[in-house]
Order: sequence, then C-alpha cells, then structure tokens
Amino acid sequence: MTDDRREAALQYARKNKEKNLSALKEILTIPSVSTEPAHAADIRHAAEWMAAQLRGLGMQKVQIFPTARHPIVYGEWRGIKNAPTVLIYGHYDVQPADPLDLWKTAPFEPTVRGDSIFARGASDMKGQSVATFKAVEALVKTGGLPVNVKWLLEGEEEVGSPNLADFIASHKDLLACDFAFNPDAGMISKDEPTITYALRGLAYFELRISGPANDLHSGVFGGVVHNPANALAELIAGMRDSKGRITLPGFYDSVRKLGREEREELARIPSDEKYYLEKTGVPALLTEQGYTPNECSGARPTLDVNGMISGFTGAGSKTIIPATAMAKISCRLVPDQDPLEVGRQMRRYLEENAPADIRWELVEMHGGDPSISDRDNAPVRAFSAALETVWGKRPYFKREGGSIPVVGTMQQLLSVESVIGGFGLPDDNFHAPNEKLHLPTWYRGIEALIHFFLNLEP
Amino acid sequence: MTDDRREAALQYARKNKEKNLSALKEILTIPSVSTEPAHAADIRHAAEWMAAQLRGLGMQKVQIFPTARHPIVYGEWRGIKNAPTVLIYGHYDVQPADPLDLWKTAPFEPTVRGDSIFARGASDMKGQSVATFKAVEALVKTGGLPVNVKWLLEGEEEVGSPNLADFIASHKDLLACDFAFNPDAGMISKDEPTITYALRGLAYFELRISGPANDLHSGVFGGVVHNPANALAELIAGMRDSKGRITLPGFYDSVRKLGREEREELARIPSDEKYYLEKTGVPALLTEQGYTPNECSGARPTLDVNGMISGFTGAGSKTIIPATAMAKISCRLVPDQDPLEVGRQMRRYLEENAPADIRWELVEMHGGDPSISDRDNAPVRAFSAALETVWGKRPYFKREGGSIPVVGTMQQLLSVESVIGGFGLPDDNFHAPNEKLHLPTWYRGIEALIHFFLNLEP
Repeated sequence: MTDDRREAALQYARKNKEKNLSALKEILTIPSVSTEPAHAADIRHAAEWMAAQLRGLGMQKVQIFPTARHPIVYGEWRGIKNAPTVLIYGHYDVQPADPLDLWKTAPFEPTVRGDSIFARGASDMKGQSVATFKAVEALVKTGGLPVNVKWLLEGEEEVGSPNLADFIASHKDLLACDFAFNPDAGMISKDEPTITYALRGLAYFELRISGPANDLHSGVFGGVVHNPANALAELIAGMRDSKGRITLPGFYDSVRKLGREEREELARIPSDEKYYLEKTGVPALLTEQGYTPNECSGARPTLDVNGMISGFTGAGSKTIIPATAMAKISCRLVPDQDPLEVGRQMRRYLEENAPADIRWELVEMHGGDPSISDRDNAPVRAFSAALETVWGKRPYFKREGGSIPVVGTMQQLLSVESVIGGFGLPDDNFHAPNEKLHLPTWYRGIEALIHFFLNLEP
Repeated sequence: MTDDRREAALQYARKNKEKNLSALKEILTIPSVSTEPAHAADIRHAAEWMAAQLRGLGMQKVQIFPTARHPIVYGEWRGIKNAPTVLIYGHYDVQPADPLDLWKTAPFEPTVRGDSIFARGASDMKGQSVATFKAVEALVKTGGLPVNVKWLLEGEEEVGSPNLADFIASHKDLLACDFAFNPDAGMISKDEPTITYALRGLAYFELRISGPANDLHSGVFGGVVHNPANALAELIAGMRDSKGRITLPGFYDSVRKLGREEREELARIPSDEKYYLEKTGVPALLTEQGYTPNECSGARPTLDVNGMISGFTGAGSKTIIPATAMAKISCRLVPDQDPLEVGRQMRRYLEENAPADIRWELVEMHGGDPSISDRDNAPVRAFSAALETVWGKRPYFKREGGSIPVVGTMQQLLSVESVIGGFGLPDDNFHAPNEKLHLPTWYRGIEALIHFFLNLEP
C-alpha cells in the first residue's frame, strides 16, 4: 500500500460528501420498522436497497435470505487470497418512531439542521452501514479493496434478532472470516474516538410469589399470613448485602478481575461521577464499593428490578393482602459469567431464602452471554490507528454496559472476535424522538474506515 | 319484668316468622348500592323504607337527614324516664353485586334456598337491621319496650361513611345515649354466639420512591444508580425484623398488653391454625412470635403491603431501571395506638432508613382509631346473657381484626361504648356473589335481641 492510494481514497470520499449524504437520505426515507407488521413491505424495500448498494460496490453472491420474519442481506468480495476477511455486521431495521408529535420534522423525511441530519435510524444504524458502504466505495473506485469483505445485514435487530443465530449457525461456511466489524456502538463524544471491547450479558427473570388462594381482607387475616408483596420485597432486598454486593450464591465466582493496566485504560474515559449524575438525574450515585462509576457501569455485574406489581395500585386505598406479587429482575453479566449458571444461582438463592409460608415460581426469560475482546490484536490495532489518524488522539477503550448479542453469537458460532466501533454520539436520541446523526463525525467516520481497511492489508 | 312478658314477646316473634321474612324480602329487592351514582334513587327508596319501618314501630322524630351524599335515617322512642337509652346503629346501603354472572339467583331478587335467603345485603346488613326492627316490634306489640331506643341508619357505610362523623358531631344531643348497639359484626359459626369487644384501627400510606429523571437503560446505567424498585423493596423489607416484629420506631410503645385472663378468654375461640390455613389457602401461617394466630389476627398490630407497582409489568421483558416505584402500605392498629402517631413513626423510619441516593414521599391516606370495650359492663352482660339463653352456651368474646370505624367515632364524639354483635356467619359471602343469610340463626337472633332489651330493664 502506498500513501498515494490512501490519499486517493480519502480524496474520493471528500469529493463525494454530497453524494454520500444523498444515499443516506434515500435509505432514511424507508420506514423499516421491524416491530410493526404493517411495515413488512418497507422492511423488504430496505433490504432490497441494501442489496442494491452491495451490488453497486461490486460485491458477489449478493442475496436476500428470507427468515421466519425479516430477511437477511448478504454480499461478499474475496479478491485477495492472502488478505484477511472482515465480516461487516449491520441492521437495516429501525425502532418505531412514536411518539410522533415530539419530532420537529417527520421521522422518515430526513432533514439537515445545523451539523446534523434528523431521521429515525440516522444514527442507529443506517448511517453506520452507509458509512461502511461509502468507505468501501472510495477504495473500490480508487486503488481497490485491500482486504476481503463479507456483509451480514439483518432486519430484526430491534426485535431481538430472533432468527439471526439460526441463520449464522446454518451458514457457517458462507460467513467464515478472520474477524467481524460491528459499527453498532458509538463514541463517547464527537472529539473522543472510542473502541468498545467488552459488552455485558444478561440474565432476565420473572419471580412470582403467591400465598393466599385469593386476595384477603387485611383486617381479618392481617397478622397470620405472610403477605406475598412483603415476601417479594424481602427476597429482593436480600439479593444485595449492605455493601451493595449481590448475594446470589457464587455470583462473583466467575467474574473476571480487572487488572491494573485495564483499570488505568478505563480511567482515561472522561465519564466521572458528575457525568452520571447529569445523565441520570439521581440525587446521588450508588456504586459497588471499590469500583469507579465507569467500572460499575461496564465491568461489574448488576441486579436490577425492571418491574414489579402486586395487589391494588389504583387511586385511593384498598385494604387487602394480595394473593400474588411479581417482579421482573435482571442481571447484567460480565465475562466470564454464564446466564444459565446465574439462573441456577438465582434458583439456589430462592431455595435457600424463600420462606415456607409462601410459594414461588421462577421463570427464566432470556439470557445473553457477556463478551470481551483482545485489546491488542491486529484488527483492533488497525482500527485504533485509523481513529488516531483521523481524530489525532488515541481512542478510548470502553466496556459497554449494554448488550450487543450478535457479538457473543459470532464468538460462539464463528469463533471470531468483533471489532466494535461506530460513529454515533450519546446525544443522538436513538430509540427516541428526533434521532440524529452528527455529519462532521460521520464524514470523519468514513475516512477512519478507509484507514482501517488499508491498515488491515497484510 | 315478668317471665310472661318475655314469653309473650318471644311467642309473637315465633308466630310472625313468615311476616318478618316478607319484610326482609321487601328491603332486599331495593338495590341500594351506595358506590354507584346510578343507584341514587334506590338509596333514597331504601331510606324511605327504613323510615316507614321506624314509624310503624311507633318511633318518634322519624326523619331522613340529607347529607352531602346519601341520607341518614333517624328515629327514637324515649318512653321510660329511668331506663337506659340504646343507640342502634345500622346501614341500609350495600356493596355492588358484580360479578353478576357468578350469582345463582339475581342479587336483588331474594330467594330462599335450603335454610338461607340469598340476596345482596341479606347478611351485610339489611338482615341485621330488620332483626332489630322485628325484636322491637315483638316487644312493642306485647308488653311494650323496656328501654329507650334511638336509631341511626346510614347509607354510606360501603363507601367509607364520609359524612357520618360530621353528622354525629353536629347532632350530639339528638344522639345522646347510654351505649350503642352495633349488629354489623357476626358470629364465629351458627352454634357459637359471639360478642366482639375490640376492633383494630388503621393507618394507610402510599410510599413513593423516585430516582432517575426517566426510566434508564439497565445496561448503560445499571451499576451506578440505586434502582427505585430495589430501594422500595429494601425499605419495605426493613419494616419488619427477623422475628416478624415491626421496626417503625416506637411502634409497640402504646400497644396494650394482653393480660392472662383475656388470653384465656380468647383461647376459647375455636379458630386454630388449621382454621386459618383452610380459610386463607396459604402453605403455612406466619404469626408474631409468642402469640396465637387468633391473637395475631385481632389483638396485635400489623404492617401489610396492599399494593405495589414499578416499571414494566407486561408480558415479556424490558430492560429498564424504573424512574419510580410505589407501594400502598397499611398498618392495622390495636389499643392504644394512634394512627397519627403511627404516621409519625413511619415518617421517622423513612428519615432514618431511606438512603440519600433516592427521593421519597409519604402520603398519609387515612386512618382509623382502634377500639376496645369493657367486657363486663351492664349492656355487655345483658347481651351475653341473651345469647346464652338462646344458644345455651356462654358467648365467645372476640377481638375483630378489621375495623368498624363508627365504633371509634361514637366513642370519641358521644363518649359511649358499643355492644358489638350481629347474626351474620363467616360463610355468608358478604361483599361477594351469592351473599346469604342463615334463617334459623336470624330467627334466633331476633329472639336474642328480645332477651337483650328485656335484660337491660333496670
């Protein structure tokens, strides 16, 4: 690779900014809302648009694979025998746009205001996919692609990717690659390039407590039975000790310890106590003893009630002992925790702590593996160098508190790690009204991707 | 009083069983549902029926007093200077009848099946009021009333008697009496005559916890904030210690101790552990250490969650940290606890235990004083002897776990105690479909009331 080739691709991207923005606007006008059956035709339309883009880039084997719900778009280019193969992930579906009345401009009429383009899916993640297309286009149209690429673009991410794992499992040869690139994570801020190297997993439960056969009169029977709502509260309260540590038996046994080097790297991230206070609006933070807020939100496991209901919750008063009480409880997991093992721990906790005067039932709703990637392999170094070239500073290495399940799925089924990046910003309003994409960051992102692909060349 | 006079009144009641039943059927056909504005005319109709009954008994000053909602019926007979005056309480309103499809016969078409008459209000408490009318009638039509009587019949009991205390406070002279008789409590079983001498009070709260400004993503923010639902659970759990004792500061300070004699009297009541297990359907009872189930349900204070809600409670999973959580919590109180003082104790508990990382708000919804009466004054002895004459056994003296707020109101405003009885049975389905009244017990009740009034004669 020569500096000329790099410069030619970058120049191409710079010259075509308007054309690239037009392409983005095209796909943003398609309301590919995956949750709503009424949008099935739009989903199909978006898949076809994606496939057309891949064909336009000279991809081969471009195909729209049907699934039980929304199709998967595939395409590949494998022109260089001894170069690595990157599997680029994307999803072309979007969240619903409602509440519509809170949008300043219509969600599927992309509108540029100031430095940003406003539309549903602009940041999450049509903008990210178009950035990968446009970086590849710049290379193809100048010196040619320096690596082999495959694309896996799904239409069900916003509904939990119900058919993705099956598709990957049954197309392992087609999807074989050296590593995956997932641009569905974002940056800490527009000036702070970010690489996400770990994601938390999830174990989600519904805990149902029952006691009396029916709601009881709290006067007649108050004092002789264990109130299921009180019992549920007691069980939940017992799931954490006074130091904020989770008491499910063995919960921390397989939690990977944070080393000094990693903690120093995480400490560079400028999201301190003040940041979290502002973002959440709570009067004070509650963190695990011995860990920074940043470590607690990404590198430590949690236990949270997501919902809880029992008895009479309307206006006024009703003097009953409720027959039942229910809580949805979920744990965010970190490497090397296993959601199935955490399910067994929860069950053991209940067996050991639930009193004999109530009945309980635990439903294990769904789980997802946590994941962590090497911060020092060749693809990560290539991406890190690309970000540093464009932003002029070494990227932050971040552990994301949420989940991107496909990363774990690919680790498991394809035995590949993912480089996780993307050019969305925390204030992009994804999943909310007035979703936007910051265009200067997006243009920089396309340049960074050009560097990334070139840096991967053997 | 001679035995002849007693016998004549009893004979009159026995001869008029059918006529008495017809009168009961008349009032049971009037759907005087106080909760539903659509029934306002029926309420009025029922009040007029009651007033007509009083006039038929030769009562004076019979009057229907309007209130802000449903009227109060009054009548009196004060023919004997040196005899005591009994204020007889009643309510002519009833609970709604729904769910209608669970009734075997229509709720306002009273139907005799077997030994019982089925209709809404049969047991609670039109049947009880008609029993008092028919006992007085038997006396009036034979040797004359041996005591002075006043009647206070309200139409708002099933909606919490919002206007009763004001009416009593502003009619103290009219209502002046030596004691009150309240037949709105029942018997332990048809063979077990019962006098209720104590009622629990109530302090009802809504506790609202808030934390984040909005629901938060449990992945992104899990680990740095105190989840309001978890915090609520922890606060509720802390309201009782491992021995089941309530931890609100000073909660037991003014609880009147149970003496040996009273505990022995309570121990006669045949409602043991098996009774409560069958009635509630719980797998095991939970009682306060050192007290029998019977004592726990009537003579000891409680703390129960009546309802609780937070976050996402629909089907499936949603990974949020809820912004708020709410619980309705109420304490049943025993003499000499004070609901206002218990409100202060709850507030103190929260001040001492709520962490600084959440916000809380306590709404004191409503309260009611507990009450306890002498078990050995003249009116109680008169009623006890009457029950023993009819049933052939000394009555049980019971502490009722629920509340009959009018008892405390009369204690407070009129400085009188109530004799609390009535001839409803635990399986009468009051407040439920297929409410019934056991007629043999009802006829016995009328006879017992005849004895009661005669026993009161100086």
